[in-house]
Amino acid sequence: MKRWADGFIAVDWGTTNRRAYLIEKGGQSSAEFEDGKGILSVGRGEFEAAIAEIRERLGEWPMLLAGMVGSNRGWVEAPYVPCPASGEDLARALVRIGDDVAIVPGVSLGDGRPDVMRGEEVQLVGAIASGQIPRDCLVCHPGTHNKWVRVRNGRIESFRTVMTGELFSMLKKRSILSDLLARRVTPREAFREGVARGLSGAGITSQLFEVRAGFLLGQIDPADGASRVSGLLIGEDIRVGLAEKPGARVIVMGRPELTSLYSSALEVAGIESESLDGEGAFIAGARNIVEQIQ
Amino acid sequence: MKRWADGFIAVDWGTTNRRAYLIEKGGQSSAEFEDGKGILSVGRGEFEAAIAEIRERLGEWPMLLAGMVGSNRGWVEAPYVPCPASGEDLARALVRIGDDVAIVPGVSLGDGRPDVMRGEEVQLVGAIASGQIPRDCLVCHPGTHNKWVRVRNGRIESFRTVMTGELFSMLKKRSILSDLLARRVTPREAFREGVARGLSGAGITSQLFEVRAGFLLGQIDPADGASRVSGLLIGEDIRVGLAEKPGARVIVMGRPELTSLYSSALEVAGIESESLDGEGAFIAGARNIVEQIQ
Repeated sequence: MKRWADGFIAVDWGTTNRRAYLIEKGGQSSAEFEDGKGILSVGRGEFEAAIAEIRERLGEWPMLLAGMVGSNRGWVEAPYVPCPASGEDLARALVRIGDDVAIVPGVSLGDGRPDVMRGEEVQLVGAIASGQIPRDCLVCHPGTHNKWVRVRNGRIESFRTVMTGELFSMLKKRSILSDLLARRVTPREAFREGVARGLSGAGITSQLFEVRAGFLLGQIDPADGASRVSGLLIGEDIRVGLAEKPGARVIVMGRPELTSLYSSALEVAGIESESLDGEGAFIAGARNIVEQIQ
Repeated sequence: MKRWADGFIAVDWGTTNRRAYLIEKGGQSSAEFEDGKGILSVGRGEFEAAIAEIRERLGEWPMLLAGMVGSNRGWVEAPYVPCPASGEDLARALVRIGDDVAIVPGVSLGDGRPDVMRGEEVQLVGAIASGQIPRDCLVCHPGTHNKWVRVRNGRIESFRTVMTGELFSMLKKRSILSDLLARRVTPREAFREGVARGLSGAGITSQLFEVRAGFLLGQIDPADGASRVSGLLIGEDIRVGLAEKPGARVIVMGRPELTSLYSSALEVAGIESESLDGEGAFIAGARNIVEQIQ
């Protein structure tokens, strides 16, 4: 087994997918792969084998695991670090499995409003440590559960989760709107109209049904259904998220196909934004945490 | 076949269930049954047989059909009557199939905000015609798709649909919250807290995740999950619905297990309400419409 100082494998291990990167000393990722072996497809007692399989592909390196693998449904639970949380706080709270595996804890918000994150914290720490984002800013991290994160003094000060991705996916799979949600979402007119309506706060649980009714009454083109519904949900999401730090410029971090939708929606809201690729931030965050192990 | 003037069978025929009532001259319902043969379980070309089966059970009477049976997924489409709509408007727009079957049209809202209803209109017309509700009032009709209905001059003036029931059911079946939603909803403390939060308008798509996070952080008893989530959704529902006629007393009409939850939630909102059984209103509405056929 090689030493942490020479390099390591970082795994972003989620519920349905995992993505592994080999990060050698001083470099960016030199090899990587993604597959569908999220934690839900790995049974109890099968994580050792799942780890061995990653090493077969990328080599006998130490491993840093982040995401749902550290949840109570994952391999070994890594208890949440409370806000405000820095990269040092995360490194101190790593859960070690032998010498060569470390699991990154999630971050929690406790006082008054409960909230949790797992996985996004590595990207945030990376973006802060590498100077890609200011030490005081508002970050939007779209995904199944979008996170609005208030960064202050270079730490995760507070955050708020919005279930936008999961709701869209549920509506698409089996709801009165399913028929209308098959097409691809594009950030054009129907999307922008949806965003404007969602931003109004008039009530997403009612506005969603308007799409169905508008279709039945011949007022809405079914080809626009997915874009309109996505716009509504993202508009509501932004309305909620901006309450974290009103009037702020927003950094949208994550997968480019999602960050571009959120940037378009923020434009409708009259808010400036900049996009940041979540993958680079993840690698930077993993490096930052591992540097503190040695 | 008997004559409409001597009596008829009224069917409230929804997506997943149907309920049929024999209503003889001058009386209330003298026989009835409910089963799971909603329109989704009746194939194209099988409605005649489904009708014959009802007559086998209740007798050879003319039939008035209401609900999704008149939708584009039902037997014969009965086009929507636009608001404002009265019982007379519905009777004029009945779709006749031979002499002995009539399908009640739905009601639509067109200008600006599209909305549709199918089935609830019979109950509304019945409650108005029988004097069970004032000719000017705000009615809340809980269900898969809750309807907030503004009644004015004895007509359905406008209305708004909120997808509360469907969203709760989706969240229960398969979501990050499913585990927490298995128990029965009771209108106690957790429900009332949920209602208060939903009423705030801070964003249901975020507040729903708080229940999951609160559970993970040991702040929320999982036994309260269903009540808390139901409260959140109904609180948001009421926030949206009251915008139809702010400050009004509300008549909650429908199935008692749902009207009691909405009444409790309206109490949290500081709004007076009274409950009305939807079944009696349906029978009164069917009688009112049939009287105009003869």
